[in-house]
Amino acid sequence: MKKFNTSPISGMQELIPAMQTEFNRLKSGIAMAFTQHGFQSIETPTIDRTEILLAKAGGDTEKQIYKVVKTAEAADGADQALRFDHTVPLARYTVEHMNDLTFPFKVTQIGRNFRGERAQKGRFREFYQCDVDVIGWNKLPVAYDAEVIATLVDAIKVLPLPRFIVRVSNRKLLNGLLQALNLNHLATEIFGIVDHAEKVPPEKTVAALEELGLGSENVVKITTFMQIQGARKEVITRLKSLGCTDKIFSEGVDELEEVLALVQDLVTDAEVIADMLIVRGLDYYTGTVFETIAPDYREFGSICSGGRYENLASNYTDQSLPGVGGSIGLTRLFAALIENGLVQTNKIKPVDVCLIPITGNEYAACAKFAESLRSEGKAVDLVLTDKKLGDKLKYAGRVAKFAAVIGETEAKSGHYKLRNLETGEETEN
Amino acid sequence: MKKFNTSPISGMQELIPAMQTEFNRLKSGIAMAFTQHGFQSIETPTIDRTEILLAKAGGDTEKQIYKVVKTAEAADGADQALRFDHTVPLARYTVEHMNDLTFPFKVTQIGRNFRGERAQKGRFREFYQCDVDVIGWNKLPVAYDAEVIATLVDAIKVLPLPRFIVRVSNRKLLNGLLQALNLNHLATEIFGIVDHAEKVPPEKTVAALEELGLGSENVVKITTFMQIQGARKEVITRLKSLGCTDKIFSEGVDELEEVLALVQDLVTDAEVIADMLIVRGLDYYTGTVFETIAPDYREFGSICSGGRYENLASNYTDQSLPGVGGSIGLTRLFAALIENGLVQTNKIKPVDVCLIPITGNEYAACAKFAESLRSEGKAVDLVLTDKKLGDKLKYAGRVAKFAAVIGETEAKSGHYKLRNLETGEETEN
Repeated sequence: MKKFNTSPISGMQELIPAMQTEFNRLKSGIAMAFTQHGFQSIETPTIDRTEILLAKAGGDTEKQIYKVVKTAEAADGADQALRFDHTVPLARYTVEHMNDLTFPFKVTQIGRNFRGERAQKGRFREFYQCDVDVIGWNKLPVAYDAEVIATLVDAIKVLPLPRFIVRVSNRKLLNGLLQALNLNHLATEIFGIVDHAEKVPPEKTVAALEELGLGSENVVKITTFMQIQGARKEVITRLKSLGCTDKIFSEGVDELEEVLALVQDLVTDAEVIADMLIVRGLDYYTGTVFETIAPDYREFGSICSGGRYENLASNYTDQSLPGVGGSIGLTRLFAALIENGLVQTNKIKPVDVCLIPITGNEYAACAKFAESLRSEGKAVDLVLTDKKLGDKLKYAGRVAKFAAVIGETEAKSGHYKLRNLETGEETEN
Repeated sequence: MKKFNTSPISGMQELIPAMQTEFNRLKSGIAMAFTQHGFQSIETPTIDRTEILLAKAGGDTEKQIYKVVKTAEAADGADQALRFDHTVPLARYTVEHMNDLTFPFKVTQIGRNFRGERAQKGRFREFYQCDVDVIGWNKLPVAYDAEVIATLVDAIKVLPLPRFIVRVSNRKLLNGLLQALNLNHLATEIFGIVDHAEKVPPEKTVAALEELGLGSENVVKITTFMQIQGARKEVITRLKSLGCTDKIFSEGVDELEEVLALVQDLVTDAEVIADMLIVRGLDYYTGTVFETIAPDYREFGSICSGGRYENLASNYTDQSLPGVGGSIGLTRLFAALIENGLVQTNKIKPVDVCLIPITGNEYAACAKFAESLRSEGKAVDLVLTDKKLGDKLKYAGRVAKFAAVIGETEAKSGHYKLRNLETGEETEN
């Protein structure tokens, strides 16, 4: 009989052990890829000053932020809240520890963030984000945009998804085009329409542009631009053929070409395309932007995404700290993997070997065997219950891949039989 | 120029990258030891219902808990707070997921917990705890008390401390003794005095006991008991010689003897003693209790500690779920390691190899070399800045153990020289 409601708060992902084992494997795989690409791990506090967290935010973020208060608030009644992403605390961290960092600062953060969103499918109030960022001192070559993409592509290979396509663009292209068309004053609206274009029928996008009163010629120019998509050389040719002579636009073309070429040097097996539909919603991106889809599971949305920002920490310092970063939203992804049957927990056994002593007299021998198996990297569980052998074997079958029963003979001889609990096969050890 | 206060909130541990690298190494080492002992990893949400978190708590905990509120609180205005330990959420989790768990449930949780304590040296408001617990279904042999201690002792070997002593007792001993002396009604006070005894001069302890009005004979009996400490056989003999015939006391003696004997079977190199001064402050412990000290660094306090509790989830279920668990308070420990110069960050290089292309023409060759080094498990950083070679080498010297400069010759031949950045030694690759 339950006396309290013991379910987790809605919007929180709480996994049973086999699922957690698989989640941890993915998280470790991602962390390993980040580390192997030379990114240094940091952790910022979960709780930060609200003024820091909301310095650049507004709208939804401000509504969704979790504030924290001590019950017995005393001397230290500062206004505090839970971080909602890694980017804002990273800006604060970089300024605070500037003198202890080496630039370009290649940094990774993997941890939980919080947003008090309305609970719904695919939305979590507490969620893991796996971030990589490179922060430059005054300037940062666009080669690092490619390195961030390459790192994330290496990282997501750990996911049980067969194939990925990285879609890359550069916000300077649309910005430059709008400048050339004298439409800068409508940039926010037009970026919003482009960002939304894949979610609505094409005629709705056209209608939305027309409603802005651009004139039909401009609408055609923008929709023509939006449709440019494909392999690097083809896209660069098409972009140049638009005849836009704006300087920002040209910079965008050059940067896009360089990033795409370099990504393919850095990860030879990645499918990378240029795609003008990618603009990213967030205003702070200023150059390269990218998203990644799993073409066989488009309903997953973007697997990882990010971009270049020129002014990460302008609220905290006058020092120019341009950066480029990207993120994998692991909690949301994991929920989608489960929903699509791509995580099969019935096969996941957290323990490698269960050692089953027949009586207490064999505990010491079991401990010796366990020590030797552990030194080979195995996870070993000693079954210390005083139940019947059958019950002990049942327990082993649930948690472990292999089991060995240790009686007087095995304890004395130092030899025992390892039984594969799936196939029933036995090997001497 | 800083425009905001960019320091973390006081009471939060925020580490520079080299420190974080070492922190992560210790945390991973602890996690590995737990996994290798057959403990299954779970994570509970950071935010839980206040009624769950405070069901058994009171006093300081209630004062220190961080409550969370959404700024735009709407439909879902439930009373929520940040977890302050792993034990309470574990109880909720075990009841909630009962049917998906295998008992005895060997479980580990490593994560951040929160207490709004007054900020002071060695006290943190956000802190990592590394917990192991074994939860039984109806009953749980005391052999698991030994397994929990053995697991923690294996785990703390990763810490840069030369030696540990595990001090074990059993609360049934003092409980039984007080029962025999008809002093149960003063149990809370006497446990408190014993728990506090090491922090005050012996005469203060005696005075505190006398103040309770026990009578001098009882004071002598209790202080005699308190002084019992040493190797298993000696202690068991001394406990039996006290002549206490209480049944609970006898149970305590038997359990202590069994646990001590088995711990030594399970970890042959551990220094384990029985020590009647160990009672643990928390009321929910009912049997075995233990603490661990580093004798060369007594000021660190307890390195890991824990005990047996008979009634973990009695607030949530009528099912009896006895357990035993223990914890390493890693954040506090890490601060003590730093303070005592036991973490030397100047020697920690997060990157194994920096590959330095002379120009952009060598990026592809570098990427190929990097891939091959990464497949050997190395962390490899490509230096993609457009700075002078000297600056690139300076960067490498700060973040990496080895570096290789890749020019046209190296790119063509596929061979390059790896330079050890500490010794200057070079090897062909």
